[in-house]
Amino acid sequence: MDRIQLDYTSVLPFASESEIALQRAKGVEALASLINGTAPGSDFLGWLRLPSQLTREALERIDRCAGALRQRVEVVVVVGIGGSYLGAKAVIETLSGSFDSLQAPPRVLFAGHHLSEEYYVELERYLEHRSFGICVISKSGTTTEPAIAFRLLRELLERKVGREEARKRIVAITDERRGALRLLSGQEGYDTFVIPDNVGGRYSVLTPVGLLPVALAGFDIRALVEGAAAMQARSLEKGDPMALDYAATRNALYRKGYTTEITVNYNPRLHYVIEWWKQLYGESEGKEHRGIFPAGADFSTDLHSMGQYIQEGRRELFETVLSVDKTKYPLVVPSDDLNLDNLNFLAGKRIDEVNKMAELGTRAAHVEGGVPNLQILLPELTEYHLGELFYFYELGCGISAGILGVNAFDQPGVETYKKNMFALLGKPL
Amino acid sequence: MDRIQLDYTSVLPFASESEIALQRAKGVEALASLINGTAPGSDFLGWLRLPSQLTREALERIDRCAGALRQRVEVVVVVGIGGSYLGAKAVIETLSGSFDSLQAPPRVLFAGHHLSEEYYVELERYLEHRSFGICVISKSGTTTEPAIAFRLLRELLERKVGREEARKRIVAITDERRGALRLLSGQEGYDTFVIPDNVGGRYSVLTPVGLLPVALAGFDIRALVEGAAAMQARSLEKGDPMALDYAATRNALYRKGYTTEITVNYNPRLHYVIEWWKQLYGESEGKEHRGIFPAGADFSTDLHSMGQYIQEGRRELFETVLSVDKTKYPLVVPSDDLNLDNLNFLAGKRIDEVNKMAELGTRAAHVEGGVPNLQILLPELTEYHLGELFYFYELGCGISAGILGVNAFDQPGVETYKKNMFALLGKPL
Repeated sequence: MDRIQLDYTSVLPFASESEIALQRAKGVEALASLINGTAPGSDFLGWLRLPSQLTREALERIDRCAGALRQRVEVVVVVGIGGSYLGAKAVIETLSGSFDSLQAPPRVLFAGHHLSEEYYVELERYLEHRSFGICVISKSGTTTEPAIAFRLLRELLERKVGREEARKRIVAITDERRGALRLLSGQEGYDTFVIPDNVGGRYSVLTPVGLLPVALAGFDIRALVEGAAAMQARSLEKGDPMALDYAATRNALYRKGYTTEITVNYNPRLHYVIEWWKQLYGESEGKEHRGIFPAGADFSTDLHSMGQYIQEGRRELFETVLSVDKTKYPLVVPSDDLNLDNLNFLAGKRIDEVNKMAELGTRAAHVEGGVPNLQILLPELTEYHLGELFYFYELGCGISAGILGVNAFDQPGVETYKKNMFALLGKPL
Repeated sequence: MDRIQLDYTSVLPFASESEIALQRAKGVEALASLINGTAPGSDFLGWLRLPSQLTREALERIDRCAGALRQRVEVVVVVGIGGSYLGAKAVIETLSGSFDSLQAPPRVLFAGHHLSEEYYVELERYLEHRSFGICVISKSGTTTEPAIAFRLLRELLERKVGREEARKRIVAITDERRGALRLLSGQEGYDTFVIPDNVGGRYSVLTPVGLLPVALAGFDIRALVEGAAAMQARSLEKGDPMALDYAATRNALYRKGYTTEITVNYNPRLHYVIEWWKQLYGESEGKEHRGIFPAGADFSTDLHSMGQYIQEGRRELFETVLSVDKTKYPLVVPSDDLNLDNLNFLAGKRIDEVNKMAELGTRAAHVEGGVPNLQILLPELTEYHLGELFYFYELGCGISAGILGVNAFDQPGVETYKKNMFALLGKPL
């Protein structure tokens, strides 16, 4: 097994092949409208061929910049929110060891993704005695959360090392020409990378927005892009229907009253991949009082919290499992002479085998309980397969929103709270 | 402001006072059936008067044990899942500094809450060169996840320090008389604490299950219990309707088609309090194909992911905000001569003021968009107010399930996946 796969056979008791086929037919049209650029929001289709268009030189420049910054500082604070946060966070959390941050200072920290005062006080204290740099990500440079964080961190950095040195420690990822951050970067001479105009925030993981922080954390951006490019070729050139099937299946379920999709993992490292997915699908489809509500769970942890509801609560849920074929290193259940816990029948079995049987048993239990089930199978947790997964999900989302009949690339509702907030804060008009 | 409060005025555009009153009347009956012990599942009502019944001696014994263990070892691994994990995790995450674990080795780590092979390999590697102890929490001692973790960790510990010393480093929280862990503890002479028979897992945060790990992490369990006892007195003796109002309001909304409750915070430290809440309500109410689906979000982070859906998606959501009045230390937005980001209108304002205006603005935006809104206001993030919140939520849950007409204290659906898993693993009958 060398590539990600989709299995929707456990949906069929709930939505028939012909019901799915009906949605697939609409999906074929939606896909065509993405390919020929006639989909709603067609100014934002840059992600569609991005993986194959990324040049070796572009990736080298990102790696070089990351390498130079990591030579210069101990830790880089990545400042961003939404799509300028979740993609990189997902890759880094998936590929890092569970206790890495307890054993060596992390190379990358995040900020600008909320307004918790305590977090910023504590971050400043943490950074006070460390050499740090900043990777600031913002199209406009004026989004409140990252802009405030960047002000705080820039002030701290300039105070600590002087303006001249600070300039060498700050990298900006921003609009090519316009905006506050572009202007500042020009004035200060920051190294910069471009957020393409035709790629929206939630589709930006394979632009410098996602790639530079991933490179800063020490992971392989080439493999990430290669995986995405392979999925692009598979989907757009070779006619592989994986994204189409996912989009069709979830729409068929939606039409039958399954209005919440819970994406679950059996490996907690995938937690932020699901957070990234929630933004991608929730923000693309949740409009005009429509759209599947995206929820997430980490199993088997959450089988002991959300398990009861999923098994026997309202029957409006379907479940998509992110399944990982191969784990990194083997560990077996030890034998125990006393066997008071009655677990000797598992002795010598790998922990991952028990985990996989929990997964298989749960899928069967949930289907039996009335929860349609999809499985996305990843061969293992590597940059390459994450790249495949990102592209699969992006394409699936474009198609799915097309079937639903909404613009997958706008987010009109996101501004409402900001307008209120600015009014409350007395922002000058 | 010295105690937690509930504000449901922003529900009234969606469910009228008389609609809520109708549910409140049922809630009064449900509350009476909890108090006089006639509610369904009445064998599990021990949590109702637990805070006032906890003696000074009992708390001192917990603190003494925690102190002794912390003298002996650098880190204690708390082994538990579901209610034997989430309560302590919620307190510790809420009260810890954002970067504490990067600056000093954590006093408490968690295990037994999933079956991730990588996690256990990495945990063993982390512990190999550290002095550690184990706090194992399990009523039966045979729940798969914690039992496997305990086997692994006990073996490692005995190998490292010998069986004699290991005995002094292991504390068990388990059934008073029965079960594998009770038996083993007797044989090995472990220090033990009792999980009361009349308190179910998800209501166990104020038993040793929650209190010992909290004490091990260095927090004040007396204040936690005092807060809960104050809320108990307020609710059961002084007739304060806060829990009743919450239960009535959410049932009134449920009956009008608001079938998903998103509990949100504006302070990421509360993330695990919401995870704890999800278990409590999801597992208590999600049965007989009924119950409100519990979801969570961390704002403003998730306003940039789930914000669009909440603002404009399907109108089946209502929102409960966990709001914190006072933050720990002040930090203001710095002024900037260039002001390219146009944020000088915020200069001199506290970050928390901006955060609060984001909260206020968002609540107004969501109500305007068709999302009923409740607010639970905490004076500050302390042990005392967390204790109040836990008791409020527990009582509210008992009442709410009573109104809904389900047994709040069983979880018949949780066993289904286990049965399948054991069959797949070939467990002897």
